[in-house]
Amino acid sequence: METLTEQILRDTIRIRPDKSHKGTYGRVCLVGGNAQFGGAIMMATEAAVYSGAGLNTTLTDPVNFVSLHSRLPEAMVADFHDTEQLEQLVKAATTVVVGPGLGTDADSLTALETVFKTVTPAQILIIDGSAITLVADKSLTLPKARLVFTPHEMEWQRLSGIPISNQHNDENEKVRAELNGIVVLKSHHTRIYTAKGTYLNPTGTPAQATGGMGDTLAGMVGGFTAQFTDLENAVLAAVYTHSAIADELAESQYVVLPTQIMHQLPRFMHEHQALK
Amino acid sequence: METLTEQILRDTIRIRPDKSHKGTYGRVCLVGGNAQFGGAIMMATEAAVYSGAGLNTTLTDPVNFVSLHSRLPEAMVADFHDTEQLEQLVKAATTVVVGPGLGTDADSLTALETVFKTVTPAQILIIDGSAITLVADKSLTLPKARLVFTPHEMEWQRLSGIPISNQHNDENEKVRAELNGIVVLKSHHTRIYTAKGTYLNPTGTPAQATGGMGDTLAGMVGGFTAQFTDLENAVLAAVYTHSAIADELAESQYVVLPTQIMHQLPRFMHEHQALK
Amino acid sequence: METLTEQILRDTIRIRPDKSHKGTYGRVCLVGGNAQFGGAIMMATEAAVYSGAGLNTTLTDPVNFVSLHSRLPEAMVADFHDTEQLEQLVKAATTVVVGPGLGTDADSLTALETVFKTVTPAQILIIDGSAITLVADKSLTLPKARLVFTPHEMEWQRLSGIPISNQHNDENEKVRAELNGIVVLKSHHTRIYTAKGTYLNPTGTPAQATGGMGDTLAGMVGGFTAQFTDLENAVLAAVYTHSAIADELAESQYVVLPTQIMHQLPRFMHEHQALK
Amino acid sequence: METLTEQILRDTIRIRPDKSHKGTYGRVCLVGGNAQFGGAIMMATEAAVYSGAGLNTTLTDPVNFVSLHSRLPEAMVADFHDTEQLEQLVKAATTVVVGPGLGTDADSLTALETVFKTVTPAQILIIDGSAITLVADKSLTLPKARLVFTPHEMEWQRLSGIPISNQHNDENEKVRAELNGIVVLKSHHTRIYTAKGTYLNPTGTPAQATGGMGDTLAGMVGGFTAQFTDLENAVLAAVYTHSAIADELAESQYVVLPTQIMHQLPRFMHEHQALK
Repeated sequence: METLTEQILRDTIRIRPDKSHKGTYGRVCLVGGNAQFGGAIMMATEAAVYSGAGLNTTLTDPVNFVSLHSRLPEAMVADFHDTEQLEQLVKAATTVVVGPGLGTDADSLTALETVFKTVTPAQILIIDGSAITLVADKSLTLPKARLVFTPHEMEWQRLSGIPISNQHNDENEKVRAELNGIVVLKSHHTRIYTAKGTYLNPTGTPAQATGGMGDTLAGMVGGFTAQFTDLENAVLAAVYTHSAIADELAESQYVVLPTQIMHQLPRFMHEHQALK
Repeated sequence: METLTEQILRDTIRIRPDKSHKGTYGRVCLVGGNAQFGGAIMMATEAAVYSGAGLNTTLTDPVNFVSLHSRLPEAMVADFHDTEQLEQLVKAATTVVVGPGLGTDADSLTALETVFKTVTPAQILIIDGSAITLVADKSLTLPKARLVFTPHEMEWQRLSGIPISNQHNDENEKVRAELNGIVVLKSHHTRIYTAKGTYLNPTGTPAQATGGMGDTLAGMVGGFTAQFTDLENAVLAAVYTHSAIADELAESQYVVLPTQIMHQLPRFMHEHQALK
Repeated sequence: METLTEQILRDTIRIRPDKSHKGTYGRVCLVGGNAQFGGAIMMATEAAVYSGAGLNTTLTDPVNFVSLHSRLPEAMVADFHDTEQLEQLVKAATTVVVGPGLGTDADSLTALETVFKTVTPAQILIIDGSAITLVADKSLTLPKARLVFTPHEMEWQRLSGIPISNQHNDENEKVRAELNGIVVLKSHHTRIYTAKGTYLNPTGTPAQATGGMGDTLAGMVGGFTAQFTDLENAVLAAVYTHSAIADELAESQYVVLPTQIMHQLPRFMHEHQALK
Repeated sequence: METLTEQILRDTIRIRPDKSHKGTYGRVCLVGGNAQFGGAIMMATEAAVYSGAGLNTTLTDPVNFVSLHSRLPEAMVADFHDTEQLEQLVKAATTVVVGPGLGTDADSLTALETVFKTVTPAQILIIDGSAITLVADKSLTLPKARLVFTPHEMEWQRLSGIPISNQHNDENEKVRAELNGIVVLKSHHTRIYTAKGTYLNPTGTPAQATGGMGDTLAGMVGGFTAQFTDLENAVLAAVYTHSAIADELAESQYVVLPTQIMHQLPRFMHEHQALK
């Protein structure tokens, strides 16, 4: 297992080319946020926008349109119950993030199944939160796409069948290989399982232990993978950045809120981008 | 009567253990906010979140979902008219805060009665604002739980039957013992009555004399008691912190707004946590 | 005509007494904001809250509840179409502010007439914006109350019958005496007409010439008059403060937004309160 | 082709005359924002307000009223489906901005046609985003007004018929002359085509390549042209300012969000206004 260092940031966060436009930095399509858990998809979206993705559209329950736009007019919105529009927006995306606050009812399942039917092998699909639970509970067949899973330990137990106490690297890697994707196993020191190897994230603080932190990470993984071509590096850099910013804030804060992390992204990414 | 000092903060605000997750810091369930007084439950929720509680769910009138989420995507929301969901969320909570902006109509009463029927002796229940008025007016039987009352002087008169002019320590303590809980009697120098003793809070400023200050305190008591195991200390530390932050802000402000206090919590709690 | 100086601030903004509570600082009831002009009553309310009034309730079109609470959970809200509740809230108020964004349709007129029927001679009534236009257009009989009018020059022409070009002190004072109130005639250097004399406000900047500035002043007049016992001084101090803050901000800004002014109130009022 | 310099700012941003009021700085009427793309018209409006336009009214889908007002109570709102009100508000405007987030469905087309039928030759009309696409797709006849087009390269291809690879100055100027307006052709170095000449904007950064940047520019062009009498200079100064602020922010940010640019406008315009 390799421990990540700041080097992953310089290897990943490229200097933006002068001649570029918003299309250069990818389209993120985020799907989640039912009436109760709407905050989750707002945080994921805000994280994607602040990490610099070119265009961001959020498919969510319409009750969340106004609160999302009050915070973030930079994102576009659509209703995740509208299957046709969901298909169109998924098709147009570089990266799809599905799951934050999605819930596990029939509507949630329909939206998830639509995403799975629509994504193509060249697209990146981040499967988070309720989407992981649904995959496990309903034994859904995973689509052919560049898959990234972002479970916490209990969600990983549901998905992999490995009890939390047995979630060792060998067992985890075995299931990851079957899933044919990248697994970000969130805990107080997150481990990332990929086809190329297993990585330990050394950053992170107990000040992060508050609701919404995972949704924020999912949005950042969405934003990084839409922009940066090496998928594995993009995931690793997003995980490292998320906790490294939290570490900075925790030097003067007892608790770090998810929305505080995202607002540091433009500054942090500037400081840690590739050297010229 | 013992006068509180900063020591209560170092005795209470523990250094967070490295190996922890959001579950370690408790679940707060907040119930309140009708169509007219929605701001009260928003402030209580924001205070619970900024004080570091692990997970926060707010049961309120649906009209308040969007404004709450516009300010604070970190909280989850549900409709307090949905009795079944209210029961489920109360059952899952470490601490329940009931009352801020709840109102006193039939729906408010139903929600309060549902909370009372559902809480168990091991749970902490903060009874604030309209909930105190309803208990007094409807002579409700209090549930068996770890009770904390946060009345201002008029609400205490209603609940205890003691006129404001007679609210002396002996009389207050007598009623507190009957109530079998902790009483935070809010005034320009708040007194706290507990089974272990009576405490005077020396902090506080007239700059705090503005609407919403009590709702904020109720939310902080919720956030502190969900995280810190000694219930009495958690209540005392929340009261002290609330006014100590106001004192700091009043050094340069004529009036201190409730929402300004909460935003200082992560910094203030960091500075005053237990010494390593 | 007397030119105001900073002395009006020290004469008016009292040091808050230690033993006080939110009731000590008055109740402001604000009535206005139809579906199109909702921002006006939000700004007025925000100004009242930030100037330190103890309790603030806004009666407005329900479409404005959510946006008001998104910005300012400290205020309570109610529907201005609900005549019974309007009456109750007006009765409970120290100061009523009517007019910002109220509009001039039948509903607006009904709300205004309800306010006029309900206020009593001991209450302060600020008549602003659309309310001035309605008084003029419908020849409404003014209620017996402590009246303050805050017209701009065109509204004053409508109310007084004096064309803008003839709005000299003698003519204005004559109408003011008939109105039996205080008149704040807003222009690039606002004049204030009272029973005790006429005052010129020397502060103010063209950077203030943007929509919402008057609504903000109306809210500040509401907040100041609810707290400070000398009505005339409270009005004068509010006018002076409003433009003095704008002058400060205009030292580094080409335009000063209304919402920027209010957020400076707690700091500015602290710096200019009565000397101990 | 002339390269713009800071001189365009000093030539355009006049020192505000002491004796002035909000009417002096123009009325901007902004039309756009359907249910999906509401953020676009919010950003355009916020940019117009922060650039100092005297009065700003936004005609949009009603779903956007609350989020717009949550961010910006300074603007007035109306429903763009209400043709009569749209006509009235367009008639009253100094500058009309049509297109940000307008969409291209039947309602969008009706709103655009109403704007085109209503504007008069003395009024300034900024045609942006979806409005450009509609003009091209539906071969709409342009109204007689002081026209400004703000296409990106793909929209310009649709409008002019010139493929992106052939968008050279001569070809572009030829079509501009036929359109009889000013064309702001947005790219990594924006070019501006006017009857007096062609200009290159030297400012701009790839950190700007994110959704909403164009909507912000359209709103700024609206705000500048409503205030500053020389139309050509106002457009040039808005384009220069938009990217010059982004350049400043990009010194410490990897990505610059549209909403961050507008909030710098009052400070930036103060620093670059005409010398006394």
